[in-house]
Amino acid sequence: MPAFLLTGGAGAAEIPLSALLVFASAKLLAELCERSGQPGIVGEIVAGILIGPYVLGWMAPNEVLHILADLGVMFLLFQVGLEVKSSELMTVGVTAVLVAVGGVVLPFVLGFAIALAWGQASASATFTGAAMVATSVGITARVLAAKGLLQAQASRIIIAAAVVDDVLGLIVLAVVSGMAEGAVNWANLALTAGVAIGFTVLVAGFGTGAMRRIVPRVQAGLNLADAQFALAITLLFGLALLAVYAGVAAIIGAFLAGMALSESVDSRVHEMTRGVTELLVPFFLVGVGLQFDVSTFSTARTLALTLALLVAAVFSKFVGCGLGALKLGRTEAIRVGVGMIPRGEVGIVVAQLGLKLGVLAPSVYGSVVFMSVATTLIAPPLLKRAFRGLPATQAGEEIPRVG
Amino acid sequence: MPAFLLTGGAGAAEIPLSALLVFASAKLLAELCERSGQPGIVGEIVAGILIGPYVLGWMAPNEVLHILADLGVMFLLFQVGLEVKSSELMTVGVTAVLVAVGGVVLPFVLGFAIALAWGQASASATFTGAAMVATSVGITARVLAAKGLLQAQASRIIIAAAVVDDVLGLIVLAVVSGMAEGAVNWANLALTAGVAIGFTVLVAGFGTGAMRRIVPRVQAGLNLADAQFALAITLLFGLALLAVYAGVAAIIGAFLAGMALSESVDSRVHEMTRGVTELLVPFFLVGVGLQFDVSTFSTARTLALTLALLVAAVFSKFVGCGLGALKLGRTEAIRVGVGMIPRGEVGIVVAQLGLKLGVLAPSVYGSVVFMSVATTLIAPPLLKRAFRGLPATQAGEEIPRVG
Repeated sequence: MPAFLLTGGAGAAEIPLSALLVFASAKLLAELCERSGQPGIVGEIVAGILIGPYVLGWMAPNEVLHILADLGVMFLLFQVGLEVKSSELMTVGVTAVLVAVGGVVLPFVLGFAIALAWGQASASATFTGAAMVATSVGITARVLAAKGLLQAQASRIIIAAAVVDDVLGLIVLAVVSGMAEGAVNWANLALTAGVAIGFTVLVAGFGTGAMRRIVPRVQAGLNLADAQFALAITLLFGLALLAVYAGVAAIIGAFLAGMALSESVDSRVHEMTRGVTELLVPFFLVGVGLQFDVSTFSTARTLALTLALLVAAVFSKFVGCGLGALKLGRTEAIRVGVGMIPRGEVGIVVAQLGLKLGVLAPSVYGSVVFMSVATTLIAPPLLKRAFRGLPATQAGEEIPRVG
Repeated sequence: MPAFLLTGGAGAAEIPLSALLVFASAKLLAELCERSGQPGIVGEIVAGILIGPYVLGWMAPNEVLHILADLGVMFLLFQVGLEVKSSELMTVGVTAVLVAVGGVVLPFVLGFAIALAWGQASASATFTGAAMVATSVGITARVLAAKGLLQAQASRIIIAAAVVDDVLGLIVLAVVSGMAEGAVNWANLALTAGVAIGFTVLVAGFGTGAMRRIVPRVQAGLNLADAQFALAITLLFGLALLAVYAGVAAIIGAFLAGMALSESVDSRVHEMTRGVTELLVPFFLVGVGLQFDVSTFSTARTLALTLALLVAAVFSKFVGCGLGALKLGRTEAIRVGVGMIPRGEVGIVVAQLGLKLGVLAPSVYGSVVFMSVATTLIAPPLLKRAFRGLPATQAGEEIPRVG
């Protein structure tokens, strides 16, 4: 049956064409980065910048990319969850809260101050601050997973802090959106925060125990081939959906699903999940790169704003989060501080909301997007350096080489 | 960062909600089918009928489903290709061509005659005939792979015949579309057919040898983790795209990519591919079920047409294809005949085109869609029976059970 008829005209080429462009360019640049000693993840984001609208112009964000990127980052966090035991995460709970709070307050204040100094109205400045608060845990998690370092103390703190950060970010954004729309409904906000915290604590606290009882029964009772994988995927989508309803990101639900299953599924589920992440994560990373906009360099004034925001973004997370982990020593504090730097897609989404509400000036929007992509590019090499010398505590993503 | 902001409003729930509905209902009904001795695939299609617009109304086809279904069937055919050696496919070449030709001529003639007898114009009747010609190899391949029967002689004939069928279907559709639009451009048609045949023969003939040289070098030369998998996915998307440009379906390119790699990639690539297919194939199957339309039973007249088309669809492929394989004995001929019955998404797409060109009457459209879904539901249990007693020649999809 002629494929060109599947969606009419050139439509049948859209999915394989988008998929090929994204996947092949991501892997090509990842390989080049690995060869020059940089993490492959940097190459995959750069691939997005290169094929994107502002450089080669081969590709603009489309539905194929959007859907596969969203699924990709869910599976990435699910995979990270599979490597993390909730009991281990609980031991770093207090530090993680300190790290997250420091990483919310300092970036917000600095972002707000810089935007005000640039002559922005206070509503625009609050959105700039809110975009600085974002953390893209996917980027750091990918680097740490690739090095087999997810079990390290600093890694556990970063991951737990990112979960807390998501709840805090929810509150900050609800407040600034409410202000932009005229009034903040504090009762509603308290309820939202309560539901989000309740969902997260409940699943993190009881998920592992529940799955330890359920998984063996499912495995024994079902006739389906790959029953464990089917159960895992169902839990992933189910908790991702509940997370959205509870007000936090879908990826938090995906992470919690992975963590709940970490002590009960077999290696087959890990391997099959890995197939999915290897396929889909490049779409997430290329999607971040595609947002990169060189037009923020068009005037000296926006260039200066962009650079000021970028420096403040790196400094504020590094110091704000690092301080929270300082009692574990300078090395650990540096690792945690660096791990919280990437803003990735989350900063971009906050900026888009500000633009949509009509409170964030377009010139500032471009600078915030640039800051989000740039922090995401800066973090992986810094992380690699900060974690140098730490032994991998599990097989991670390194495979034996043949030939 | 609050997830509900990711795409604005309820948008953030769309991906996890669609994914959960499709995946969980598919696996639930697959389990119920397996328990009652039916192939799980039947349950996954029935799940689509149940949650679809005409029964529970929980879900209508959307972009998430469309994209994941298209990727799913590509990966399914890629996985089938990984299990098939091109040298083995060549040995059944002549039989496969006979099977494919018989499976094109008889269904077309019967479909055309029935539509004419029901008072349709000849253009509408030719489209009905063309929709009867379609073969959905994905359905049969899934059943045979699940039983570990892809190496059986009848399986190889079915797969090779489905590839030939795709090229013949291209020609039939080009002719009937040309007739509907006023004139058939025969020179253009010959060129299209030539390119399609050339692409298929070239990749099938030389792909395996090329990959046997390239894969070890890539494995030894690349720094990327999972370099083999990255190469495999790139080849999959690349050949799928070339197939579309050559005029055949993307899944034919995906199948050829798998076959080219079948003798050179390690078991890790198989396992990772399996993770992707287990995730995505339910979207393809549920998508077929979602097309099911009970309104074709609204009048006795359309009901009679639907049943006539359904009986003719089953009979014509069974006999038309079975005759081509008769020299291998009755048992093999029955297996091949049954394996070619499902029309699946392909018949639906042909009917949609006829509707779009304004030549297929809406009442006939409903009947053709029903026939496509019904043949797809009928085939798996018949296949299971036809292949009974044949030993699995590889591990297939059965995994050792724990507990």
